[in-house]
Amino acid sequence: MNEDLKACIRIIEDFPKKGISFKDITTLVQNGEAFHNAVERIAKIAEKYDFDAIICPESRGFIFGCAVAFALKKGAVLIRKPGKLPAETIKYDYQLEYRTDSLEMHKDAIKQGQRLIIVDDLLATGGTIEAAINMAEQLGGKVVSSIFLIELTELGGRQKLEERGCAVEALIDYPF
Amino acid sequence: MNEDLKACIRIIEDFPKKGISFKDITTLVQNGEAFHNAVERIAKIAEKYDFDAIICPESRGFIFGCAVAFALKKGAVLIRKPGKLPAETIKYDYQLEYRTDSLEMHKDAIKQGQRLIIVDDLLATGGTIEAAINMAEQLGGKVVSSIFLIELTELGGRQKLEERGCAVEALIDYPF
Repeated sequence: MNEDLKACIRIIEDFPKKGISFKDITTLVQNGEAFHNAVERIAKIAEKYDFDAIICPESRGFIFGCAVAFALKKGAVLIRKPGKLPAETIKYDYQLEYRTDSLEMHKDAIKQGQRLIIVDDLLATGGTIEAAINMAEQLGGKVVSSIFLIELTELGGRQKLEERGCAVEALIDYPF
Repeated sequence: MNEDLKACIRIIEDFPKKGISFKDITTLVQNGEAFHNAVERIAKIAEKYDFDAIICPESRGFIFGCAVAFALKKGAVLIRKPGKLPAETIKYDYQLEYRTDSLEMHKDAIKQGQRLIIVDDLLATGGTIEAAINMAEQLGGKVVSSIFLIELTELGGRQKLEERGCAVEALIDYPF
């Protein structure tokens, strides 16, 4: 499925460290037709769900998530690295595929009872997305689905998110 | 002009440091109608130019630039902080409004003779945008215009970019 999009992803071995087979999305994003198709297909999946806004994790989540938000006339809720958001935030520490990091969300970004979708470029272990779910729930929101351009199927992200009641969808997959 | 959009920007005083009156775009971006209108108006300005792709500076440039690229079915060329792009890059050091930083672009992101537009959230001193112009020209491209959600008119960015042959357009302005 979506083999036309998969053909636009460039694989870079041993980046950012030895043993990681990095999926470079820049070759897809700089291809106008492929990028348009990817965003439209993510938007089509998103439309299956009843939701109010799209959570976009910094930085690559902005690329796809904000374009999908535009396509569907929804708001985009940004989650960013610490110190970037200027108003009052909540903060969450999480484990990435190959390091530990923190993310923040504005406290007023989500209203009590809102239903949310997360859009990001890639699902690996699901650490970033679980951080987003935790922050959204702390603010009274409910993340109903997460949609990715790429899923790395052997890293356990899907199981982790589905256990949290968050559906997982992806256009393209690789084992790792 | 665009007073409806200006009303969605939140001003945070003394962020990230004392004396800076920070223009918080997150309140606009999380408003689905306002975000959609902002992207459509930037796209309408972009359509006046003959161009091949849109340069989007990390991170907030991704929010608007990638949505405009989607709207116009154009490719998006990412410029990122050092160490983030996995293939061979060119690097440029530049002076920001309140610190020094570096940016990178993939060497194969721009082809000889391509015409480009830069989309970013905010024009201040123009340091980031000048870095983008320098990298694009080094790769044989020509930046014909730069379009911003916000221009800070008293910081000299417009003059700096116009001297480089790059048009400057903005939806909203503030003195600083």
